[in-house]
Amino acid sequence: MGRYGSVFKIKPELKDEYKKAHDEIWPEMAKAIKDVGIKSYSIFFRKDGTLFSYLEVDNYEEAMAKLAKTDVNTRWQEYMEKYFVKEGKSILGPEIEMLEEVFHLD
Amino acid sequence: MGRYGSVFKIKPELKDEYKKAHDEIWPEMAKAIKDVGIKSYSIFFRKDGTLFSYLEVDNYEEAMAKLAKTDVNTRWQEYMEKYFVKEGKSILGPEIEMLEEVFHLD
Repeated sequence: MGRYGSVFKIKPELKDEYKKAHDEIWPEMAKAIKDVGIKSYSIFFRKDGTLFSYLEVDNYEEAMAKLAKTDVNTRWQEYMEKYFVKEGKSILGPEIEMLEEVFHLD
Repeated sequence: MGRYGSVFKIKPELKDEYKKAHDEIWPEMAKAIKDVGIKSYSIFFRKDGTLFSYLEVDNYEEAMAKLAKTDVNTRWQEYMEKYFVKEGKSILGPEIEMLEEVFHLD
């Protein structure tokens, strides 16, 4: 099981709305995330709008590729579009920056 | 089980050394972390020196208070002192900023 941290950014003034959207995540979106093997997925908010995402999955690239092919993910990303701040730093998309794990203790 | 995200900062040029110190964490420090109930503790590095910490624990405040009372933690914090960048934003210490969880999916 791999652990993956990444960072992206939303407009901080939209945080409550972003959180509400996630509190009420579409059941089919939650199912798609689980179906590709993602476990224990958390997102944390910093006051400047930075979001820190943590998730566990066996094969990150494979899971993300599978997820990207689902219709529900395309619709979810369109729904999330208004919250994102594009910063042009990316591996997977313009707004995502992968982090390096420097420590883990089970 | 609660999930806690926090942010602090190290001098980015010292990242490899910081990671090595954590790869070789003192066994008594690892034991102290586990003994206070902390589970699945990860730290991720961003190129600007920001570290994102993720951990799972039943009672964060109680665990941190217990850890702070251990001699080994005092020695570890002294050992880590040279890596930290103090930014003056804090709940638990000058260098720690707690994050708000806005999403979780098991």
